[in-house]
Amino acid sequence: MQNKKDQIKSTNVEIRMKGFKEKKDVNDFINIIDDKISQIKAFELVSLHEAAGRVLSSPIVSQVKVPNFNRSAMDGYAVRGEESFGAATYSPIEFKVLGLSLPGKPFEGCVIKQTAVRIMTGAPMPDGADSVIPVEFTTEENNILKVTESIPPGKNVGRTGEDVNIGQVILETGRKLRPQDVGIISSIGISTVSVIKKPSVDIFITGNELLKPGSMPEGYKIVDSNSVMLDALIFRDIQIHPNIVFLEDRRELIRDALCNSKSDFILVSGGSSVGQEDHAPSLVKEIGEMLIHGVALRPASPSGMGIINGKPIFLIPGNPVSCLCAYDLFASRAIRKHAGVNFDFPYKSINLPLSSKISSMVGRMDYVRVKINNSIAEPLAISGASMLSTTTIADGFLLVPGECEGYPSGAIVKIYLYD
Amino acid sequence: MQNKKDQIKSTNVEIRMKGFKEKKDVNDFINIIDDKISQIKAFELVSLHEAAGRVLSSPIVSQVKVPNFNRSAMDGYAVRGEESFGAATYSPIEFKVLGLSLPGKPFEGCVIKQTAVRIMTGAPMPDGADSVIPVEFTTEENNILKVTESIPPGKNVGRTGEDVNIGQVILETGRKLRPQDVGIISSIGISTVSVIKKPSVDIFITGNELLKPGSMPEGYKIVDSNSVMLDALIFRDIQIHPNIVFLEDRRELIRDALCNSKSDFILVSGGSSVGQEDHAPSLVKEIGEMLIHGVALRPASPSGMGIINGKPIFLIPGNPVSCLCAYDLFASRAIRKHAGVNFDFPYKSINLPLSSKISSMVGRMDYVRVKINNSIAEPLAISGASMLSTTTIADGFLLVPGECEGYPSGAIVKIYLYD
Repeated sequence: MQNKKDQIKSTNVEIRMKGFKEKKDVNDFINIIDDKISQIKAFELVSLHEAAGRVLSSPIVSQVKVPNFNRSAMDGYAVRGEESFGAATYSPIEFKVLGLSLPGKPFEGCVIKQTAVRIMTGAPMPDGADSVIPVEFTTEENNILKVTESIPPGKNVGRTGEDVNIGQVILETGRKLRPQDVGIISSIGISTVSVIKKPSVDIFITGNELLKPGSMPEGYKIVDSNSVMLDALIFRDIQIHPNIVFLEDRRELIRDALCNSKSDFILVSGGSSVGQEDHAPSLVKEIGEMLIHGVALRPASPSGMGIINGKPIFLIPGNPVSCLCAYDLFASRAIRKHAGVNFDFPYKSINLPLSSKISSMVGRMDYVRVKINNSIAEPLAISGASMLSTTTIADGFLLVPGECEGYPSGAIVKIYLYD
Repeated sequence: MQNKKDQIKSTNVEIRMKGFKEKKDVNDFINIIDDKISQIKAFELVSLHEAAGRVLSSPIVSQVKVPNFNRSAMDGYAVRGEESFGAATYSPIEFKVLGLSLPGKPFEGCVIKQTAVRIMTGAPMPDGADSVIPVEFTTEENNILKVTESIPPGKNVGRTGEDVNIGQVILETGRKLRPQDVGIISSIGISTVSVIKKPSVDIFITGNELLKPGSMPEGYKIVDSNSVMLDALIFRDIQIHPNIVFLEDRRELIRDALCNSKSDFILVSGGSSVGQEDHAPSLVKEIGEMLIHGVALRPASPSGMGIINGKPIFLIPGNPVSCLCAYDLFASRAIRKHAGVNFDFPYKSINLPLSSKISSMVGRMDYVRVKINNSIAEPLAISGASMLSTTTIADGFLLVPGECEGYPSGAIVKIYLYD
């Protein structure tokens, strides 16, 4: 036991207070995510009420025809269409009205020569009739119908199976269900669907200086913002709330939490860098594998990713702007990829000119918050990773790529919008 | 009582089976919505856990400074900055290391001439020190620090109140809260926020031909798709589930439901047109005010809007494609406007060329479903309001404005994407 503790201590010393030897390119990080993260294999059944936005894990195949009968596509009169030929406003053709066909309540008789059945949209077509004359082209008095427009056979009639046929694959595996998809699934008599399970996420918030949300800041303690922000970001991405745990900066505590996590992902907020109390990186190396640590990105350079027991773990810097940036660039992509949903960058973008120049170090990506005034983007901040207000005052941000040394005033740049 | 029934019957006869005398322009409908619907006045308190995406009903004003102390912005060493002047790789300057300042656990002594305190990001600055030398520019052995870069006073230090100051309005009324907004609210010690209440919505599904979702289609009955689709659409818009009620096509039943609704909005699906069983329009006229009924729009022409007891009611056609179209164009806008959220059209758009021509009647807007193949938009369907599959096979849709008679093959059109 003493040996193990010594070993932990020596590992600890080894990594702290040295700085990153090398910072990897943001794209290297993204490539590692794309390489290591695959779509979750677990499925679950959900009701249609909860199905929109979920991703199908198997195709939807219809066992029925929709509709299962010929039906009217209009409010009007079911007739034998060719008998309306020649009808016009000043030479209406007359039909005898036999009865009524309502949705769910068909007319029981048969339409014969020069007769008609009043029919509503969606109602079954009566036997004998082959088209529907819209109500707009008719007048009816004492069961005598006058028709002022000729309607060919087949017109305004929906055929059996026109919407869905038996054996038809109506939605494929991998489909992110739209509202109308849920509607069509309902129409074929299916009430639960098998969808890709949502990943579960543990968030470990570390930092002895932190008070939990709901506290007032006091003395040298600050109130944590990352837990509620990450909660909202994960909810944005996969519509579940993560499991949030506050941990003291004690190596054994963090170690136990990492080893005992039951979730699909772990995000550790804080203690991700090379400082005295930064336990997470060495722990990942010790009990798992570190895939990347240290990124040429400002802020959020102390971001990292590893694998423990086959489970992805993301090291998220404690500074709140870095936390936002690291989550959006890295963890968000991984979580959404695992969930089987679109994992592109989760912000709309527009191209706008810059109000002033931006200088950036070659080799490093900069996450620059901008304010938009009259369709001009004003750079607010590159540094200030600890100032979350830079992201609440801003309307969006731009990313200066590593190979770029910045932009002159007036340059057209791609702005990602926070809203 | 007999009189009342007669009266109802005569009203019923008056409107049914006549067709719309006049169909209003889609923009007239939208103008009525914008004129009649205002933001909800009711507020509610929510925890930060639920606050993202909600709309502030009062500003957030800080009672505290963030941070409440000067803090290090880097892992490194707190020094008197001017004492590092002249330091370089081959001529390092030495400092004696006095101790350590950690986040939440400051160094108690004072930094004096040529001394330093090891300090972590976020830790309080020790008295006497005015800048932080990043760990990358240092080596430390036996409490002797060698510094290889000169760092001016003030550098890498976050000042008291740099993020938020006392009395500062950090977020204004009307703000739709971002994840980082929730974070900054947490950091100033606030744990609940007052937000605009979400509108409640009653959905009345009418139609005797309908079976509830979960049933198998049988005989001349079809399974309702509009309830689950509208449920998903409303959840998309305001993240609440509506109250769904299935009603037989009986005038008294629908009348009671309209009169007794406790929700902020009513949507009636089905029975919205001029057919035999279309009770809703005449009921709206009878017990409230009809603002618009009948729109030059294909599908969804039998859409309408009225007011009953000050409550907006939307008439949504029963055909599922019409239902989708009428909801997205009209009811969605009203509900989101009332909820205080962005009420623009809820789909991303792209401009693409058409694979073939589209003909459209002048004076009527057409909602054309399209499939996108190799960045070319192929029109699938204009008609077929009853065929929900046209909206599940499609990738999106375009709207042909009333004044336009269609587009030639190859024309560049704006496609709204379903996903």
